[in-house]
Amino acid sequence: MNVAEYVVKFLVSKGVGDVFGIPGGVILDFLYALEATPGIEAHLSSHEQGAVLEACGYAQAESSLGVAYCTRGPGVTNAVTGIAEAFSESVPIIVLTSHANRTQNPGMRFEFDQELDPVPLVANITKYAVQIEDPEDVCRELEYAWQQAVTGRKGPVLLDFASALWKREVTITDTDIAAEDPDGTVVYTNTVNYVMERLEKVKRPVILAGDGLRQAGACRYIRELAERLRIPVISSRGAQDVISGFPLYYGYIGSHGIRYSNFILEKSDFILSLGNRMSFPPASESFRSAIENKCVIRLDIDEREFEREIPGAINFTVEISAFLKEFLKYRKNQSYEEWISVCDRLKKELRDKDLNEAVYKITQIFQSMSSDILIVSDVGNNEFWVSRAYEYSGICNRILYSKSFGTLGCAIGKAIGACYYTQRPVLCIVGDQGIQLNIQELQMIGQAQLPVLILIVNNHSSGMIRSRERVKYNARYVHTTPDSGYGHPEFEFIARAYNIPYYTWSDFEKKLVEEEIREWTGPGMIELEVDMEVDLQPGLPLGNTCQNLEPALPEEQYAFLDQL
Amino acid sequence: MNVAEYVVKFLVSKGVGDVFGIPGGVILDFLYALEATPGIEAHLSSHEQGAVLEACGYAQAESSLGVAYCTRGPGVTNAVTGIAEAFSESVPIIVLTSHANRTQNPGMRFEFDQELDPVPLVANITKYAVQIEDPEDVCRELEYAWQQAVTGRKGPVLLDFASALWKREVTITDTDIAAEDPDGTVVYTNTVNYVMERLEKVKRPVILAGDGLRQAGACRYIRELAERLRIPVISSRGAQDVISGFPLYYGYIGSHGIRYSNFILEKSDFILSLGNRMSFPPASESFRSAIENKCVIRLDIDEREFEREIPGAINFTVEISAFLKEFLKYRKNQSYEEWISVCDRLKKELRDKDLNEAVYKITQIFQSMSSDILIVSDVGNNEFWVSRAYEYSGICNRILYSKSFGTLGCAIGKAIGACYYTQRPVLCIVGDQGIQLNIQELQMIGQAQLPVLILIVNNHSSGMIRSRERVKYNARYVHTTPDSGYGHPEFEFIARAYNIPYYTWSDFEKKLVEEEIREWTGPGMIELEVDMEVDLQPGLPLGNTCQNLEPALPEEQYAFLDQL
Repeated sequence: MNVAEYVVKFLVSKGVGDVFGIPGGVILDFLYALEATPGIEAHLSSHEQGAVLEACGYAQAESSLGVAYCTRGPGVTNAVTGIAEAFSESVPIIVLTSHANRTQNPGMRFEFDQELDPVPLVANITKYAVQIEDPEDVCRELEYAWQQAVTGRKGPVLLDFASALWKREVTITDTDIAAEDPDGTVVYTNTVNYVMERLEKVKRPVILAGDGLRQAGACRYIRELAERLRIPVISSRGAQDVISGFPLYYGYIGSHGIRYSNFILEKSDFILSLGNRMSFPPASESFRSAIENKCVIRLDIDEREFEREIPGAINFTVEISAFLKEFLKYRKNQSYEEWISVCDRLKKELRDKDLNEAVYKITQIFQSMSSDILIVSDVGNNEFWVSRAYEYSGICNRILYSKSFGTLGCAIGKAIGACYYTQRPVLCIVGDQGIQLNIQELQMIGQAQLPVLILIVNNHSSGMIRSRERVKYNARYVHTTPDSGYGHPEFEFIARAYNIPYYTWSDFEKKLVEEEIREWTGPGMIELEVDMEVDLQPGLPLGNTCQNLEPALPEEQYAFLDQL
Repeated sequence: MNVAEYVVKFLVSKGVGDVFGIPGGVILDFLYALEATPGIEAHLSSHEQGAVLEACGYAQAESSLGVAYCTRGPGVTNAVTGIAEAFSESVPIIVLTSHANRTQNPGMRFEFDQELDPVPLVANITKYAVQIEDPEDVCRELEYAWQQAVTGRKGPVLLDFASALWKREVTITDTDIAAEDPDGTVVYTNTVNYVMERLEKVKRPVILAGDGLRQAGACRYIRELAERLRIPVISSRGAQDVISGFPLYYGYIGSHGIRYSNFILEKSDFILSLGNRMSFPPASESFRSAIENKCVIRLDIDEREFEREIPGAINFTVEISAFLKEFLKYRKNQSYEEWISVCDRLKKELRDKDLNEAVYKITQIFQSMSSDILIVSDVGNNEFWVSRAYEYSGICNRILYSKSFGTLGCAIGKAIGACYYTQRPVLCIVGDQGIQLNIQELQMIGQAQLPVLILIVNNHSSGMIRSRERVKYNARYVHTTPDSGYGHPEFEFIARAYNIPYYTWSDFEKKLVEEEIREWTGPGMIELEVDMEVDLQPGLPLGNTCQNLEPALPEEQYAFLDQL
């Protein structure tokens, strides 16, 4: 078996069925091996940024492994944004690349044409990156890279093969590198006891759920636990699908969070943070006051996250699934039913606030979808409307965000990857500016007639920057509105160019009523026009405590708070 | 004056009239300063990759300074390919970026959302990169970065400003950093004497011109020199416009070079390489035999280039303009007229060979253009047809290539930048795959109605990889032909979506006849259909000496060689 065949066989053994990339001379042997192997298929991207985002979407759909390949030089540099996104989102992907000549003299500018050593380039945005020159290193490096990608706090790895290696006979070596047990045989008895003891002493605890729960495959356990202990759960915005649809889930917090969620955070006396980075702006007065002077316990697999200091917090480095399994054995005596009724009241009174035209329309789509349809959100004002509609509609579909890197334009690629993984329709929501960044990937959707429904939330502006200009710069707009230089293509023609059926909102609304949407068999592009003035509201001005989102509600609507 | 205003004023003082980028929260203050300053204009890109390529085109049009700005995080990672291209092409550009929080703990994964320290990311693809935190550092860093970009071997620099800095009062400091004299007062008498002495002893000298001549502003001097010494000039493909139209210029060499150029290289007994990297594949038998056992003298400003060893070569690190000015004072005694007649004969006999349908049609356009129209070529088979048409048509227009990084898709961005610099029409030639990579930048062309004429050479394939598959892999195609998964959008609708008039070749040919093309006032997209079977020929199989390009010419066409 040659190296190319071995690599493909390895990927298949790890459950990879679809990979994404663009052919290049140095990577052809790998591509041929892909083509010759049953059970795995390569898909042609139009930009390596798209290819890596496709691998991300594939991996994120259900926390499996994603794979992208790219050629040397510009192939690798084009992939950088996708790799950074995967690192930021803890997405396990392998990026495979290849070089014809290995740079020997880094002081020389481009010793070989097109050859750029990718290892230093991605060193800070991968868990592991290496160039492989020897057939004897292939098995070990592949195994090690894969383990790095999928264990602990997950993330991207990059393997750069010498192109001459692909055709060489692989040397099968012992790949039993690490004695790490991914299942985690550690017993967290002490940690559980500690948490239980604290829980017995408080009256208004909350669980702050993070995406780490999903990463750890612990979505099931957190539900069981919250149900058994009867503790309200809130989450970060990016983790709203971790426990959505659960009766004790009370939405997401944040500076553009749900009003009742921020209230509940503020009124709690105990925060059990599970797989949540608690990445509030460190100088934020708003969240400090919601966290200070109460017991905060943080559990995370990545101990380095605890260097993001939360005053007074107790930190435990744990594998969350194992921890929760252990936790589930315990019983508690304390009851928090009174606190739950406060939370219920907050939610009931505030549920209908802060909605707008865009939120209502997105809700309309959400409510017409079956629960197995995955949603991918892009970056910008539209993502906040999506989050709000998600909370308002009460659905519990899987939803992908670019949570911390904020990769504008990432949704198209991720939707494609997710669609290949789930083999089900995917709803992709993107703004009129964001779609431009990876617009070339529409080629894959149109060509393969993938059931990806693209909702363009078109407010004819660079909405989020415009919001900032409005609030902080006295509405001085530059390149963010049509009057100040912003523009977008005519999406109807874009759709035709890429062979994707196009709908205006009113056309699509008719389809929604007919309920055809539940079983899309091919792609679609819907253009939802939203007034530019519909802004990113409510928000938290600097210095406001977290429950005081602006615009403030009329005073009479707050009256009920006195009773709580 | 605040920092933002100072930076803008600095750019204006360096002759920068247009900058490219996308607004982001951390960079707004800089953008407002741009907008408020006369004589400089910001243009809205659709992807930061495009913005940096636009800055490259702007800079390359006449070797001036280009500037792009981008926001933090994905803004910076999106810029990476453009920065690598600028580094590889020695293009002087400044990339301005900004951060709200400086990463203090690099071991932590994304200490702050969206914040990625760009300095290690671009360390290997910039001449200089730095984060600036203090108003006292602004003047010095800006001056130093600029000097790095525009002096010696040019290239990109990156300055990452703390966003809080923009509004702070700048501290004017002494920026007289380096005592380097960019004019070079060094006298190269010894070098010139050495070269002259060698020249007197040889019979068939050639000057091998490289793009370094243009970088050094020495295009004028090389013409004067070659004319005075009566020495034939050949060039690398990427430098064919350095001395084009000159009677003693005999085309470009290379593994896909011009047949007579390779012959002349092979038959020469002395090579004077000026600003040429001589980056033949180091293992290439083909070029080794053309270089070995003859006198090779290399002159370059970047001494590290000499680490690319050429056996027996004599290397001098010189500032080429100063060197040539000195050289021009000398007279020689030796005459090379017999050698020139050999070169003329080679060119005459072989000029009409190796042409194809695509070359003829591109020639047709070239011959209808005025000489002040800049041409930008993309990457792929089409670029080789463009080079050949350029040589065949005998034009001397400025032409931009991605010479060594091979950045597929770079042409659209570069054409935009060049158009803003020259304020004249620009011809942009790109393949059906390449255009996809930066297709979103058509927005800028359509919106500003820039006179950029885009010729899409559409062979419905990933031509260059297909060529490789045909030759080296027994025509086993994967993702490179319509049958094997390759596809492209319908360009007519793309053109409509971006508000660009569209022409088929036959429509456009009529326009050509009417000679309207000399004065384009707006954009256009022409789709030139080329049969997929028209391949990248001739080429040099491994092991052939450089004059033996394949397909070989019929024997009778080579008969004249016996007389030379």
